[in-house]
Amino acid sequence: MTALSIRTDDPIFALHEGGKLAVAATSPIETPEDLSKAYTPGVAEVSRAIAADPTLARRYTWVSHTVAVVTDGTAVLGLGDIGPAAAMPVMEGKAVLFKQFGGVDAVPICLDTTDPDEIVATVARLAPSFGGINLEDISAPRCFDIERRLDERLDIPVFHDDQHGTAVVVLAALRNAVRLLGRDLASQRIVISGAGAAGVAVSRMLAAAGATDQVVCDSRGVLHASRGGLTPVKADLAQHTNPRGVTGTIADALRGADVLIGVSGGHIDEAAVAGMAADPIVFALANPTPEVHPDVAHRYAAIVATGRSDFPNQINNVLAFPGIFRGALDASASRITEPMKLAAAEAIAAVAADDLRADRIVPSALDPRVAPAVATAVAAAH
Amino acid sequence: MTALSIRTDDPIFALHEGGKLAVAATSPIETPEDLSKAYTPGVAEVSRAIAADPTLARRYTWVSHTVAVVTDGTAVLGLGDIGPAAAMPVMEGKAVLFKQFGGVDAVPICLDTTDPDEIVATVARLAPSFGGINLEDISAPRCFDIERRLDERLDIPVFHDDQHGTAVVVLAALRNAVRLLGRDLASQRIVISGAGAAGVAVSRMLAAAGATDQVVCDSRGVLHASRGGLTPVKADLAQHTNPRGVTGTIADALRGADVLIGVSGGHIDEAAVAGMAADPIVFALANPTPEVHPDVAHRYAAIVATGRSDFPNQINNVLAFPGIFRGALDASASRITEPMKLAAAEAIAAVAADDLRADRIVPSALDPRVAPAVATAVAAAH
Repeated sequence: MTALSIRTDDPIFALHEGGKLAVAATSPIETPEDLSKAYTPGVAEVSRAIAADPTLARRYTWVSHTVAVVTDGTAVLGLGDIGPAAAMPVMEGKAVLFKQFGGVDAVPICLDTTDPDEIVATVARLAPSFGGINLEDISAPRCFDIERRLDERLDIPVFHDDQHGTAVVVLAALRNAVRLLGRDLASQRIVISGAGAAGVAVSRMLAAAGATDQVVCDSRGVLHASRGGLTPVKADLAQHTNPRGVTGTIADALRGADVLIGVSGGHIDEAAVAGMAADPIVFALANPTPEVHPDVAHRYAAIVATGRSDFPNQINNVLAFPGIFRGALDASASRITEPMKLAAAEAIAAVAADDLRADRIVPSALDPRVAPAVATAVAAAH
Repeated sequence: MTALSIRTDDPIFALHEGGKLAVAATSPIETPEDLSKAYTPGVAEVSRAIAADPTLARRYTWVSHTVAVVTDGTAVLGLGDIGPAAAMPVMEGKAVLFKQFGGVDAVPICLDTTDPDEIVATVARLAPSFGGINLEDISAPRCFDIERRLDERLDIPVFHDDQHGTAVVVLAALRNAVRLLGRDLASQRIVISGAGAAGVAVSRMLAAAGATDQVVCDSRGVLHASRGGLTPVKADLAQHTNPRGVTGTIADALRGADVLIGVSGGHIDEAAVAGMAADPIVFALANPTPEVHPDVAHRYAAIVATGRSDFPNQINNVLAFPGIFRGALDASASRITEPMKLAAAEAIAAVAADDLRADRIVPSALDPRVAPAVATAVAAAH
C-alpha cells in the first residue's frame, strides 16, 4: 500500500485513477415514456426490424461507429508480453485517441489467451457487436496469421495497427521526405531494420507505393533468398525484396543506401549510418530508444524522424488509425484494402505538404485536420 | 427503402438512430503532454506497474466499473431466438440503465454462437477486460450451465439477469405483499407458472428466503418427483419443491393457493384463478401479455403485479441489476452470492415500505433511491 500512496502523487498515475474511459448514454431515460422507448416494450420493435433485415443494425445500433481494440498483451509497446490486464491502460489510451480524433467509439478487449486459434475464434464470435476490429500489440509472427484469418472470415474491417498503421505513417513521411529532397521513391535504396509486425507491413506498403529496392534485416542480418531457417513470412519477404542479392549485416545493407527505416528496437552503429549514401533519410522509430539517436543521425542524414514526441518528425500511428477506421465505417467497408491504406498515407502527407520542411515531414500527432482528411480519402478509395 | 422512410418518423426508431451508447474519454488529450501521459510513453509506467501487481488493474483501469452485457440472442424479450444483431438494441438499452441507475459502464457483447462451450470459452477469454459479466437473454436450460461454469471459472461476478434479477425483484414484491396482508412468507402456498430461467431462479430464491410450499408448473403441468422426462434442472426443482405432492395442471396447483407467480408467457384461465384461496396475490409477469390480465386478476386477488409499465406494481429488473453490480463492484466481490441477492431484495422492498399500498408494493422503476440502496446492501452482504 505504501507504493500506491507514492504513486498517487505521480501525475501519470493520478490521471489513470479509475481508468480513462466511460460509457455514455446518448439519450437519457428520465420518464416512463423514455424507458418504454429505449427499453421494453418499445425496443422490441427495433429488434424485430433488425431480425427481419439485418442491415438495419448499422442504422439503429451503435455498432456502426464502434471498434473493438483487441489485444492478447503479448507485444505491448516496448514492454513485451505483459499480459491482458497490464495491456489495458494502453488499449484505453488507444480508445481515447479513436474517439478524440476519429469520433469512433472504441472498446478495449484484452484477451486471456495467446493461442492464435482461440484469438481468431473469440474475435469472430464478438464480431456482431462491433463495426470493426483493431488488433493491437499482438506479437509477430502470430499477428500475421491472426489478422489474415479474421480478415477472410469477417465482413467488417480488421486492421492490425502495429503493422498497417505504422506502414501508412511511414509511407506518408517517406513520400514527403523524398519530395522535399527532389528524389523519386522508386529509385531509393531502402533498408528496413526489423522484420516483425511493423517491418513486414512497411516493406509491403512501400512496395505497393512503388519502392523497388528494399533490403530488410532482422536481428541476424539481411534477409535474402538463400538464407535458411526463415519463418514463412520472412521467407516471403526475402523473395520479394533484396533485388541486388545483398547479404551480411545491417551495416552491409546500409552501405550506399538512401533510406534507413528502423522498426526493430535494436541499436545501429554510427559507422553503419556513416556508410549510407549522401544526405540519407533516417527514420529511427524504436520507442523509447531509437535505433540511431537523432543527434547522431543528423551528422549524416538530410532528414531524420523518430517515434518520439520530444524530437521533430514524430512517426505516430495516431495520424492513421482514427481516420482510417472513421473512413471505413463511413463507407460501410467490409475490409481495409491496400488502396485505402495508400490513400490514407497520401492524405497524411498532404496535410503536411503546405509547410514542408526537413523537420516537418508529417503533421503533428495532435493536428485535428489529419483524421478527417484521412477519413475522406479512405472512404473515397473504398 | 420505403419501410425505412416510414420508420424514421416513428419516435422509437428515431430515438434508435445511431444507437443509444457512446464511449467517452474521462480526460481529453489536448496537448502533447496529455498525449504523453494518457498514451505513450507515460502509459507504459502504468502498464509496468500492473504487470508487477495485477491488483492495480482495478485502480488504474476502467475495468473496476465495467460490466459486459453478454447475450447470444436466443431468448430476447418475448421475441425468442432473434440472433445477436437483433439483440443489440436491447443490450444497449440495458447498458443505458446500468449507467443511469448504477453508474456502471456496461458494454453490450452480442455473440455469434449459441454453443454453450463456445459461449463459456469466449466470455472467459474476455474476462480481463471487465469487472463483471451480466448474462442476458440466453435461453433455458443452456443458461443454467453457462452461468454455473462461468461463475466457477472466473473471479469476477457473473449474473444471469433473467434468472436472478427477476428473482430478486419478485422476492422484494412478495415480501411487501405478504407484509401488507399481514401474512408470513413461510406459510404461503405459492405456485410458479414457468420453469425456464426466471421460474427456476424465483423458486430457488423464494426457498432461500423461507418459502416452504412451492409448486412449479411448466407448459405440461405440475413438476413432481415422479414425473418422467424432466431436464436435470426441472428434476432438481421437482425434488426440492411440491412438498404436498400435487400433480396435474396449473389449475390443480392453484386450487387453494395463496400466491401465483407467472413467468411463463402462457395463458391462465380465470377459473383457475377463481380456485385460489381467499385474497390471493397474483404476479402475472409475462410481457407484453400477462398470464392473467390484471383486470381479471383483480376480481379475485388482493394484490396484483405485472411486468408492464402501464399497470401498477411493475416487477422490473431495473430495480435490481444496476444496484447489484454497483454494490458488487464497490466491494470488489468475486461473485454475487445468495446473501447478496437476498440483501438486494430487502433493500428494494424497504424503499417501497415507507408508503406501502396494494398498488405500490415495489418502487417505481425510475426511483433514483433504489440502486444506491441496493448497492449499499449488496456491498454490506458481501
